[in-house]
Amino acid sequence: MRLPQFYIDDIIKTALKEDINYIDSTTDLLIPEDDISEAYYLAKDSGVLAGAEVAARVFKLLDESIEIRFNFKDGDRVNKGDILAEFKGSTAAMLKAERTALNLIQHMSGIATYTRKCADLTEGTRASVTDTRKTLPGLRPLQKYSVVAGGGRNHRYNLTDAAMLKDNHIDAYGGITPAVNALRKKAGHMLQIEVEARTLEDVKEALDCGADVIMLDNMSCEDMKKAVELAKGRAKLEASGNVTLDNIRQVAETGVDIISLGALTHSVKAFDISMKWKKK
Amino acid sequence: MRLPQFYIDDIIKTALKEDINYIDSTTDLLIPEDDISEAYYLAKDSGVLAGAEVAARVFKLLDESIEIRFNFKDGDRVNKGDILAEFKGSTAAMLKAERTALNLIQHMSGIATYTRKCADLTEGTRASVTDTRKTLPGLRPLQKYSVVAGGGRNHRYNLTDAAMLKDNHIDAYGGITPAVNALRKKAGHMLQIEVEARTLEDVKEALDCGADVIMLDNMSCEDMKKAVELAKGRAKLEASGNVTLDNIRQVAETGVDIISLGALTHSVKAFDISMKWKKK
Amino acid sequence: MRLPQFYIDDIIKTALKEDINYIDSTTDLLIPEDDISEAYYLAKDSGVLAGAEVAARVFKLLDESIEIRFNFKDGDRVNKGDILAEFKGSTAAMLKAERTALNLIQHMSGIATYTRKCADLTEGTRASVTDTRKTLPGLRPLQKYSVVAGGGRNHRYNLTDAAMLKDNHIDAYGGITPAVNALRKKAGHMLQIEVEARTLEDVKEALDCGADVIMLDNMSCEDMKKAVELAKGRAKLEASGNVTLDNIRQVAETGVDIISLGALTHSVKAFDISMKWKKK
Amino acid sequence: MRLPQFYIDDIIKTALKEDINYIDSTTDLLIPEDDISEAYYLAKDSGVLAGAEVAARVFKLLDESIEIRFNFKDGDRVNKGDILAEFKGSTAAMLKAERTALNLIQHMSGIATYTRKCADLTEGTRASVTDTRKTLPGLRPLQKYSVVAGGGRNHRYNLTDAAMLKDNHIDAYGGITPAVNALRKKAGHMLQIEVEARTLEDVKEALDCGADVIMLDNMSCEDMKKAVELAKGRAKLEASGNVTLDNIRQVAETGVDIISLGALTHSVKAFDISMKWKKK
Amino acid sequence: MRLPQFYIDDIIKTALKEDINYIDSTTDLLIPEDDISEAYYLAKDSGVLAGAEVAARVFKLLDESIEIRFNFKDGDRVNKGDILAEFKGSTAAMLKAERTALNLIQHMSGIATYTRKCADLTEGTRASVTDTRKTLPGLRPLQKYSVVAGGGRNHRYNLTDAAMLKDNHIDAYGGITPAVNALRKKAGHMLQIEVEARTLEDVKEALDCGADVIMLDNMSCEDMKKAVELAKGRAKLEASGNVTLDNIRQVAETGVDIISLGALTHSVKAFDISMKWKKK
Amino acid sequence: MRLPQFYIDDIIKTALKEDINYIDSTTDLLIPEDDISEAYYLAKDSGVLAGAEVAARVFKLLDESIEIRFNFKDGDRVNKGDILAEFKGSTAAMLKAERTALNLIQHMSGIATYTRKCADLTEGTRASVTDTRKTLPGLRPLQKYSVVAGGGRNHRYNLTDAAMLKDNHIDAYGGITPAVNALRKKAGHMLQIEVEARTLEDVKEALDCGADVIMLDNMSCEDMKKAVELAKGRAKLEASGNVTLDNIRQVAETGVDIISLGALTHSVKAFDISMKWKKK
Repeated sequence: MRLPQFYIDDIIKTALKEDINYIDSTTDLLIPEDDISEAYYLAKDSGVLAGAEVAARVFKLLDESIEIRFNFKDGDRVNKGDILAEFKGSTAAMLKAERTALNLIQHMSGIATYTRKCADLTEGTRASVTDTRKTLPGLRPLQKYSVVAGGGRNHRYNLTDAAMLKDNHIDAYGGITPAVNALRKKAGHMLQIEVEARTLEDVKEALDCGADVIMLDNMSCEDMKKAVELAKGRAKLEASGNVTLDNIRQVAETGVDIISLGALTHSVKAFDISMKWKKK
Repeated sequence: MRLPQFYIDDIIKTALKEDINYIDSTTDLLIPEDDISEAYYLAKDSGVLAGAEVAARVFKLLDESIEIRFNFKDGDRVNKGDILAEFKGSTAAMLKAERTALNLIQHMSGIATYTRKCADLTEGTRASVTDTRKTLPGLRPLQKYSVVAGGGRNHRYNLTDAAMLKDNHIDAYGGITPAVNALRKKAGHMLQIEVEARTLEDVKEALDCGADVIMLDNMSCEDMKKAVELAKGRAKLEASGNVTLDNIRQVAETGVDIISLGALTHSVKAFDISMKWKKK
Repeated sequence: MRLPQFYIDDIIKTALKEDINYIDSTTDLLIPEDDISEAYYLAKDSGVLAGAEVAARVFKLLDESIEIRFNFKDGDRVNKGDILAEFKGSTAAMLKAERTALNLIQHMSGIATYTRKCADLTEGTRASVTDTRKTLPGLRPLQKYSVVAGGGRNHRYNLTDAAMLKDNHIDAYGGITPAVNALRKKAGHMLQIEVEARTLEDVKEALDCGADVIMLDNMSCEDMKKAVELAKGRAKLEASGNVTLDNIRQVAETGVDIISLGALTHSVKAFDISMKWKKK
Repeated sequence: MRLPQFYIDDIIKTALKEDINYIDSTTDLLIPEDDISEAYYLAKDSGVLAGAEVAARVFKLLDESIEIRFNFKDGDRVNKGDILAEFKGSTAAMLKAERTALNLIQHMSGIATYTRKCADLTEGTRASVTDTRKTLPGLRPLQKYSVVAGGGRNHRYNLTDAAMLKDNHIDAYGGITPAVNALRKKAGHMLQIEVEARTLEDVKEALDCGADVIMLDNMSCEDMKKAVELAKGRAKLEASGNVTLDNIRQVAETGVDIISLGALTHSVKAFDISMKWKKK
Repeated sequence: MRLPQFYIDDIIKTALKEDINYIDSTTDLLIPEDDISEAYYLAKDSGVLAGAEVAARVFKLLDESIEIRFNFKDGDRVNKGDILAEFKGSTAAMLKAERTALNLIQHMSGIATYTRKCADLTEGTRASVTDTRKTLPGLRPLQKYSVVAGGGRNHRYNLTDAAMLKDNHIDAYGGITPAVNALRKKAGHMLQIEVEARTLEDVKEALDCGADVIMLDNMSCEDMKKAVELAKGRAKLEASGNVTLDNIRQVAETGVDIISLGALTHSVKAFDISMKWKKK
Repeated sequence: MRLPQFYIDDIIKTALKEDINYIDSTTDLLIPEDDISEAYYLAKDSGVLAGAEVAARVFKLLDESIEIRFNFKDGDRVNKGDILAEFKGSTAAMLKAERTALNLIQHMSGIATYTRKCADLTEGTRASVTDTRKTLPGLRPLQKYSVVAGGGRNHRYNLTDAAMLKDNHIDAYGGITPAVNALRKKAGHMLQIEVEARTLEDVKEALDCGADVIMLDNMSCEDMKKAVELAKGRAKLEASGNVTLDNIRQVAETGVDIISLGALTHSVKAFDISMKWKKK
């Protein structure tokens, strides 16, 4: 899986402009342009790597000639103390790239690491771990990509590519059944329809009118088990709301197909990576 | 303090394009264009608000005629259960704006809330709470603004606007003193110079050569106290590294002027706000 | 259904910059700035309107004060000789907007008109008329929107939002079944899977492994009828390839669910509209 | 003749973002990154090629290492069954580029093919075939370039670079003569002036006041012949309106210098090219 | 004559982002948001105004509610001591806009003022004063507009809209005549052809092969007079090279049609305008 | 010191789009694509070079294969008659790049040349020559960079990165002392504070409340000397207003630390460089 390069480049250029603006007042005035250094990335924690290519690209955009070797690739588990990558090139360019590259790879690896924890906890169940649209503006592609690197799957990418019927939509048509029917009649054939269900009654109605996916909104595990029994595979079931590392196993064992967590992308803890410079 | 509107607009438009892309397949196919709803923002936690104008602007960009009234302004403390804002307008436009607006205001309020906690813990000391360049790409202006809303102050905004001498810069000139001298000779008169010090020896040298600010890099509180005594106000002292809610008071009591925390912006926990729709 | 305004604005601004560049050498040098004119849009053919708001926005972007009244809305059938819209405002601004606005509305109405013809011909069958990814660069949102205005439906909007298994994908996994299984295992739960079938054997295999949609690639009507019998509603069937106004009815009567036509968007005949200026 | 690369790149990137958006859900999840394929472009019709470099650039922007060899160049006549180009490289990247590249080259070759037909029909006369400002938003440079590839010439590129006096401009100055005089007095010396003439009277007046070009607006062939006689080479004459493949020869034989056709760019029929993948 | 607003807006937004970046550290921290001030523009020199609408737009983009009244319009002569404009509105917004607005209006008025001087000196002759392509990157539209405001005319706007045959072009075809003939054969009918002539021989050849305009490159006034006699109105003659305020009258009196000066736009002296704030 | 490449590229692409727009009507129609030429830059005046890399990049963006060798680097003094650079490559690409590259390097070298004159005149004094925010929209980075190339230093880069207290700010707080105190309390620790002083009284107050820099606004040399005596090094002093080549030495000898000149960037005289083409 690979994000288009010019797509990543746009995000990186925005970040570099934000961070450099005009010049690096320290580096540009002190470091000779032909000075060469070596450095490496040191994992300060254990987790899952994401963003190797993105971080490398930050350096390359400032100086094509910087040599970068990653010892791990996106999705790999890494341990505290691992040398993640090695760098050799223009000291000045590497100093300018350092912060922006770390900001990106730490954020992305933070997402992958947390997703991996969730995915590990659901192992052996039929549940897959999924993100939401609760992403940070401008960073959705990198965030969704990192979820996959961590062993999760992507929910819909945007409002266009799948339908999700919430209260308001349902009210506008006088109930789940008329709303689903109306949508089927108007939507293209590639559009999946998901219905938010608050009660088991909702689940039943959604099943009967042929929803593709049913979101079990903040339901108890008990109710979710009942929903699974009702569904008998007629629709996929998505558990949503208040899922944490503490209860995710329990949720997964209800038999739902999908567990979605906003926290994967809206409350990310940066994964700690340090750039170490070799003494010359 | 006010971010330029067209600046905010660029971030919001990027976010909306990411989230809407082409159409909202659910809303556009089901909700009549002239349908009007009312809704409100409910605080699901206690903290500090940031991003009121930004969130409001998301709605306005989709439909100028949506009426929005915020009951609090950026920087205000809010309590769980507070009605933060009230909305009335096109149901379709509000449904399309909902997620993007929440993504922004929850992130910004999360930063303000955490900054406020840090600032409260340092009250009565001379220390101010400060952000870093460890921000999320594309979001630096909103993040730095939110730190101020939470009672913190901004460190340098980018690499241009102040100098920070790190090991590499210092090595390139054979020590702190020659490096600071070189910079004074070349830099413009508006440029502050900060020196990273790892030892009390470094602190002494930086003081003697006239650094404006000295960063005490991962020093023990004991050493920081000694640094304060050495400085006698000749330079500002910044504590940096491993500061948490648990030890920030202790750090502040060493007498340092500034405490900087990367976590204010690189590991943000979203502040929980819910958009509730009034039944019609 | 409404395209986001700032989205449309980007396309229009690109078009206006292309057409005006610096100044209108004729108008800017000859027409006094306060000169006011009236004009109207005259349909020179019969068809379906699409792009009314887009065309109006072209004028508004050059001069907010131009008054525009459309007598029809997108999706309406219009007849040769109909007055589609009336304009009053700055002569200079209207002269500058004229060509760009017509270029857009004629293209969009051309799509809606052709789609309507196809849709009318399939009336009474279960088949819906659908577009493809064979769109013109930069114009996809306007083109897909126009297809809907003409009574068609949208196929997937881009490569992200649904999967389409072609020969290459299938070969990479040693057959339809392993490829569909691999995709189900990795893809998010909102992703529909369509399989390109060249033979009835392919159709059978795709049905058995649970494809959501099967594309019948350039099949004879006879084979398509057999595919419909095989499917028994287990998957949706899409007829694709060499469909024209001459044979679309016949294709629709095979019982397929969807008929997709690249020509809806890749070979558009502009709908003839003339802007007439009232004598003063 | 060569369009600037960064100019083309902007159009292609817009198109790729539109088509890929985030990932290719099919290819990215199924095709190994190091899988290599061979493919070729097959002409499904006879006509004139345009867009070879543009199509090649689509592939290169996704993967620099894809090898592409075109057997024809822009402007060449190609026959049904010709192998237009050969490709070898990353299967995944080529699958992602395929549709966008075809959308561009088919549109451009469609324009060149139709222009060529018109140009061939006017051979031996003094008339050259010319485009108009009736282009598709965002695609004007590619469309005008394709007209030249097909043996046509470009009319003015935008409103800045030449003057065209229409009714409104003429009315504002009380007649053709005063309007042309006013323009000569104000305009730069590089600006050509064209006057729209509806009658032979208009032609006479335009000739007498020194118009550089006179557009014969929807005139009969008979009137056009008279206009040619009146002009005696004092101004160039442009036939405009209702020109088709059926009557273009007749129009050309009136002796006009230019025949302009909006249909060259506003109603383009895509030229049929198929990308064939070699079995491995 | 009016530049499109969204066009101007792009330039202004770039300028404001450059100047404000994130916040105005002085104003945002000190000035209450509801503080209102009055101010005015004072001419510190005599000259010609250009950029009134542009400067006003800078203020409006930061705060729609600022009231601005210009006492003069673009092209007007103004005298030292004149109150050019009056402002009332948000102190904070006006302080942020002040510098960017002045940078624009001073540059534009500087161009208009110098152009006016040149134009006044050529009064009564047939020569018009014209700019060149020697403009500052990104500012060409504002610069060319200012030349017109100062009574000059625009040369070609870019490389597309007219042809200029220089040595290299001529050498490529073995002389002026074959080069002009080649161009006539290939170019569109709206393209003027100008030939650079270094000698009177060149002038003769250019006249004989029908060049529309002939540039007399760095010729003596004597030679230019001879060129005028040779031309007898068959082509327009443009004097170019080393024209200053000291010799422009003499050049104009040779009888040339156009005098072009790179200095109008490449070496602009800002026109001195001061923004004065009324005491409260 | 090096401006980020993608930053420069944005400015150059804007400039090239402005100048080329669609095609070069002369070159594209006349020069064969494989024609190769040699050329060189000839200094027509003596001064200081700035913009070598920028000019080279213009050519490279149009054709990577053009070979360029600069005989001088930014900041070097060059003499009339010097060959500044040599070029070999595609005639067509070089003709298209020529004007844009010269526009940039002539403007940048003009700034460096004038700054160098100022700097030379202050040699031996403690004063350094500094720019202002009086820059041309979109060109600030290139202009500030050129000032440094000419031996000057940069004042603040934008409104964010340092504070400058003017009358309005001071009035809002009832005097210099309260305003400075308010700012110290709110601003980040990296923010330098400069105070505009109109009188020696202002200077005293600014010194006493701890301003970092004091701008002596349009003061006489006598008063500036007194200010220097008052300051005794407690704050840096900046002379501002009406400084010219004629009086800059006198100003420098007052003992001020900084002399700022708006004219360095707002009234630039292009440095004369000619591109000469070698005969083939």
